[in-house]
Amino acid sequence: MSEESRLIDALRALATHPGARGLRDDVAVIPAPLGRDLVLTHDMIVEGVHFLPADPPGDVAWKLLAVNLSDLAAKGASPIGVLMGYGMTGQADWDAGFIAGMARALDHFGVPLLGGDTVKQPAGDGRVLGLTAVGQVAPGTAPDRRGACPGDLLFVTGPIGDAGLGLRIARGDIEGPRRLLKAYRLPMPRLAEGRQLAPIAHAMADVSDGLLIDALRIANASGLAVHVDLDRVPLSEAALGFGKGRTARLAAATAGDDYQLLCAVAPNDRLAAAAIAVEIGRFDSGSGLHVRDGDGQVPLPSSLGYEHG
Amino acid sequence: MSEESRLIDALRALATHPGARGLRDDVAVIPAPLGRDLVLTHDMIVEGVHFLPADPPGDVAWKLLAVNLSDLAAKGASPIGVLMGYGMTGQADWDAGFIAGMARALDHFGVPLLGGDTVKQPAGDGRVLGLTAVGQVAPGTAPDRRGACPGDLLFVTGPIGDAGLGLRIARGDIEGPRRLLKAYRLPMPRLAEGRQLAPIAHAMADVSDGLLIDALRIANASGLAVHVDLDRVPLSEAALGFGKGRTARLAAATAGDDYQLLCAVAPNDRLAAAAIAVEIGRFDSGSGLHVRDGDGQVPLPSSLGYEHG
Repeated sequence: MSEESRLIDALRALATHPGARGLRDDVAVIPAPLGRDLVLTHDMIVEGVHFLPADPPGDVAWKLLAVNLSDLAAKGASPIGVLMGYGMTGQADWDAGFIAGMARALDHFGVPLLGGDTVKQPAGDGRVLGLTAVGQVAPGTAPDRRGACPGDLLFVTGPIGDAGLGLRIARGDIEGPRRLLKAYRLPMPRLAEGRQLAPIAHAMADVSDGLLIDALRIANASGLAVHVDLDRVPLSEAALGFGKGRTARLAAATAGDDYQLLCAVAPNDRLAAAAIAVEIGRFDSGSGLHVRDGDGQVPLPSSLGYEHG
Repeated sequence: MSEESRLIDALRALATHPGARGLRDDVAVIPAPLGRDLVLTHDMIVEGVHFLPADPPGDVAWKLLAVNLSDLAAKGASPIGVLMGYGMTGQADWDAGFIAGMARALDHFGVPLLGGDTVKQPAGDGRVLGLTAVGQVAPGTAPDRRGACPGDLLFVTGPIGDAGLGLRIARGDIEGPRRLLKAYRLPMPRLAEGRQLAPIAHAMADVSDGLLIDALRIANASGLAVHVDLDRVPLSEAALGFGKGRTARLAAATAGDDYQLLCAVAPNDRLAAAAIAVEIGRFDSGSGLHVRDGDGQVPLPSSLGYEHG
């Protein structure tokens, strides 16, 4: 049996949803959710760019699913299913580890594998993995990145910077607790928080590239300025072990891969939002990113987070 | 402006559908089609495997869209939109040619670009391109590959083998008319024919890997045997210029990339199907592929078409 046949058999064992048609058809067929909006996202990850050849393949699978579910979470959407695009470079062990990890991740989030494609890549090339996530939401309720209003408060759903420290641990730059490494390798999409915040969020996005840059993107997309109070950016107990001053907080706020949610909420909804998230700033007329802490205005670092391109 | 920023700007000019949110959000949001089934497919193509570095980038874009729309066509589905995953390897000219070709292809088929992702690949790696197509169909009407019944007739929607000859022309193995090269580089998904056949098709699939292998896959998935009359397999005028005997017909029936549709239809629906497609065989109890022509049983070639893995 060829490598690709073995892989497809392993995927068939995961694709038990009737809409997947046992991966024996070229498509998935599912009833459209009645009177709902569809939320669609497609993210790719590339070996040597978004993950390292030495990363455990099961963790790469988790991350591929998690980053896509995080995009659904930021719209308050519930996942319906996913389609996966898998590039094979001829390492059966890696493939098996990846599929086992994807099985665990799909099971954890209760999301069915509906279909996709497997392709061969030239030997030696970096693996390219893609995933399309399909979700659903009440009509008209998926917050846009462009919807923040002057006076809106900026909230974040949880600690920032753990994944950045985890990356440094993974690289061997520092030593630190396993839970930080886990924050980097097995990020958690904030699906429940997204559903709770969506009804009151004027704008919402996940923190994939860094809190400051992702907050600025909401501001830019909404034609506003965003003001961040650095002292209020929540850090985990584990992260506080690496410092609690301006330098440590700036490092956290410019590190990526946390997958917390950022949202813009009207002052009237402050109490409702505070039950789920932490207030860290506000939007106002004007433009750009403005950061302060107890010592006054914070000069912006040259990099606000992971910049594409 | 970085290469990726330029590329995303070019894609934004294509993503004019409101559901695409100007590609400024991480997702697309569209109303679920009321009371319809969703048909979802995701196909990838890889440089050096599915296309060649020297292929015109605009034609590669067309093919990426066409192969996915062909999967929708085989279910009688109408396209709603697509999400694209684009791997950049740092050649701005190639990217520009690809985006221009994708613009033409989307316009030709009237399909909106809803979203997707752009990623950097390591320099020198083969480009990996993925596309997710979302379509819709009346509930319960999308034919499966598994639904053929004993006694069903096998129909094909048009000439077979043009793309295979086009590939040989592209490789410089033979000379031939431009329309054969075009059949290979700019395949046409049979969306209209798919919609017409779906109501009477017990099973339907596109000819992507070769008529014989794709017919056998329908038979295997349905637990049946398929009998093909090689003399009835339609060849274009241009293809007949390369031969009309058993050898030429077998070459056509084992070449891929034609993207005609194969379907299984009850004898009662023969007249309706014959208005759209050509009868070339039948399904029966038993198993396997059986090919005949005017000279009797045809020994099967070692390769029935493009075999994955």
